Amino acid sequence: MSKLLDVEDVTARECCAPLNGPAIGEGEAAELAQVFKALADPVRLRLLNLIAASESGEACVCDLTGPFELSGPTISHHLKVLRQAGLITGERRGTWVYYRVMPDAITRLSTFFTLPMAAPA
Amino acid sequence: MSKLLDVEDVTARECCAPLNGPAIGEGEAAELAQVFKALADPVRLRLLNLIAASESGEACVCDLTGPFELSGPTISHHLKVLRQAGLITGERRGTWVYYRVMPDAITRLSTFFTLPMAAPA
Repeated sequence: MSKLLDVEDVTARECCAPLNGPAIGEGEAAELAQVFKALADPVRLRLLNLIAASESGEACVCDLTGPFELSGPTISHHLKVLRQAGLITGERRGTWVYYRVMPDAITRLSTFFTLPMAAPA
Repeated sequence: MSKLLDVEDVTARECCAPLNGPAIGEGEAAELAQVFKALADPVRLRLLNLIAASESGEACVCDLTGPFELSGPTISHHLKVLRQAGLITGERRGTWVYYRVMPDAITRLSTFFTLPMAAPA
């Protein structure tokens, strides 16, 4: 009996030519470059790290401002950039927005950088 | 005369906490952000792809200009940015420079994006 593929699995499989795979087209390169642009900021990297490392898998925006000497609106701006790049998702519950990482987006990046030659023996 | 430290080696050695691991410090975040800044350009992504996908493991700069409607100096600038980020290395042999990817730098990025939670259930 065939097992139905999980949608996330399909996405992960289709998205993810590795860096040393077939030539990346202009469209895909432009789209990937946007994701890396979102990552090209130390505050956004640390925010993404905090969200990904949250024990419950999600982080309240109310806990994301403390570690930085930045205003709430500035943190919100950085979170918006991460969200627009598809790296995190946010859900409002009551007063606060709760963020979690998008596993498919992260898996895509992991696969992109997985080179057979770089694998441990 | 003192021996200069190879910056690229140091970068590769200090690497590899995953995104959902311990808090990323300000210094590491700033350094990683520089790497992502180098990747945040479609032409540089395609150049890195061409170099990584080269059958011999290295690509002559003479083969890297053709696929783009860009001048030689523009391609050279992009290659320099990738080199300064520690993503590729170049070696002059005769007339041409030959580029190869730095496996440690690529492995670092792969590890950074490898989340246990992203594994299929």
